[in-house]
Amino acid sequence: MYTLGIDVGGTTIKSALVDPAGSLLAKKRTPTPKGAEPLAQTVAQIAREYETLIHDGELHDYRGVVDETRVRHTVGVAVPGVVDEEAGCAVLSVNLGWEDVPMAELLQKEIGRPVVLGHDVRSGALAESIWGQAGPNTVFLAIGTGIAAGVILDGKPRVGRGWAGEVGQSIIHDPFNPSQRVPMEQIASAASIARRFLERTSYDSIDGAREVFELAAKGNSVAKQVIDEACEALADSVVSAVSLLGQVRIVIGGGLAEAGPDLINPLRQKVRNRIGVLPEPEIIGAKLGSWAQTRGIAYAAMRQELGLSW
Amino acid sequence: MYTLGIDVGGTTIKSALVDPAGSLLAKKRTPTPKGAEPLAQTVAQIAREYETLIHDGELHDYRGVVDETRVRHTVGVAVPGVVDEEAGCAVLSVNLGWEDVPMAELLQKEIGRPVVLGHDVRSGALAESIWGQAGPNTVFLAIGTGIAAGVILDGKPRVGRGWAGEVGQSIIHDPFNPSQRVPMEQIASAASIARRFLERTSYDSIDGAREVFELAAKGNSVAKQVIDEACEALADSVVSAVSLLGQVRIVIGGGLAEAGPDLINPLRQKVRNRIGVLPEPEIIGAKLGSWAQTRGIAYAAMRQELGLSW
Repeated sequence: MYTLGIDVGGTTIKSALVDPAGSLLAKKRTPTPKGAEPLAQTVAQIAREYETLIHDGELHDYRGVVDETRVRHTVGVAVPGVVDEEAGCAVLSVNLGWEDVPMAELLQKEIGRPVVLGHDVRSGALAESIWGQAGPNTVFLAIGTGIAAGVILDGKPRVGRGWAGEVGQSIIHDPFNPSQRVPMEQIASAASIARRFLERTSYDSIDGAREVFELAAKGNSVAKQVIDEACEALADSVVSAVSLLGQVRIVIGGGLAEAGPDLINPLRQKVRNRIGVLPEPEIIGAKLGSWAQTRGIAYAAMRQELGLSW
Repeated sequence: MYTLGIDVGGTTIKSALVDPAGSLLAKKRTPTPKGAEPLAQTVAQIAREYETLIHDGELHDYRGVVDETRVRHTVGVAVPGVVDEEAGCAVLSVNLGWEDVPMAELLQKEIGRPVVLGHDVRSGALAESIWGQAGPNTVFLAIGTGIAAGVILDGKPRVGRGWAGEVGQSIIHDPFNPSQRVPMEQIASAASIARRFLERTSYDSIDGAREVFELAAKGNSVAKQVIDEACEALADSVVSAVSLLGQVRIVIGGGLAEAGPDLINPLRQKVRNRIGVLPEPEIIGAKLGSWAQTRGIAYAAMRQELGLSW
């Protein structure tokens, strides 16, 4: 039985039919329009395209043709920004241009089918919890342009009126400029690592955090320092999470996760330095890659159609 | 219908019969013995004393005599330290001298009745959530000799294998001595505020954090600085909690709560300074005083006897 999962990203919408094992069928990418109404129309168009494919018998898997009886009625749609999925509300997206939109209702009206609204990072966290190695108690840190966490406790995503996991937004001292206070993500996000390197060197441009990590590996001291500052901020965040939530697994996702051990090893060391008597958390990389959100929101839609509570 | 709640403190055991409105009957204080076995025997003795009082018809309320039919079979016992109540395990108490004790089982054997094991701070948080003004999503900060939090999410206490809420244990920079890293509670607990004042002045002794707050009110600059450092650390902790959990109410309990607005007003200001776009949490004082834990653990025992899940 498949469920349609639609993950609205800042630039691309990733949709697919997802089965209970998390396998993907008929993956599709669509550009993301600006604004809530255009988005709802685009998402509805995507849903119709899947309906047509299924109706025309054009989708197949190892069991044969995928017809209407093999696809759930409910559609899952994950959006970025601040999302209160319990209230069906898209609270805020500066990038996509909305505030306090009753998104679940709007989507449902356009699509004409039951819709489960989700948050992109929490959907990714949920997928890592179900099909990856995050487990039922996890803080999934998505580190890319910004930083947000998906917090799953006893298998249930924590929403907190939409603001749970916005760890990138807390204001901390800039270690390079201690009189300044900035949102944590302005020190530790992938984009910030690249920016902070450029600000302190004569480089005109750089190929993102990836190149900063490469330069650090070659001994560039500014690159090393910028990464060190990012890891310090992330370690503070990890230790705060453990001190508040007790035993949880920390999963590193998003673009910065590509740094692999170059990020995770120093992060583990810094967490160890400040964990005290608290249980040292496992810190691992995300397993599912960039389609995790599509899978997670389909899973949430499946749960709702089955009437499962969290 | 009453439930026996027994709150094991570092020096005193506070027990009472608790009704569903949180009212207390037959309050009793008993010195706390050291060690797990002596504690279990003392708690069993307390339970027997209540049984005798009830059997002999010596307890009365506005409805008349309180007989066996009006008291639940299950007993709630809250203990301090690190407690994994979901596993029935007293993980660690340095003060009372135990480690990894199957405390629920031990108590049940001694008392001969079903026992619900709880954690003192989480029990207090639960009582503030049910009968105070903490609400179903709260971080209850108990600030006394040490610092621990009771984290209640959607009405359910977060356990995390016993380590949830141990925010006092995370290692932070000492603002007075930036090369030093210490557990947060060594800066912001009531005991630490008194100690840090003494360390920087020629005072021989002081009447706890209370007197430091009095001196600060009179303009003593060291007292002001020590309190300021404590509030900074607490504000960091509060903002971390909000960034991770989203909308929660912050409740200040424990001995330091007696400082009232002298603590809460600067704390609110410092939280505001670093909350960024996150929702500013309500920060309020605890409402129930020092019997909150007894009430909370009785509530947990009542829930278990009624077969209510969280």
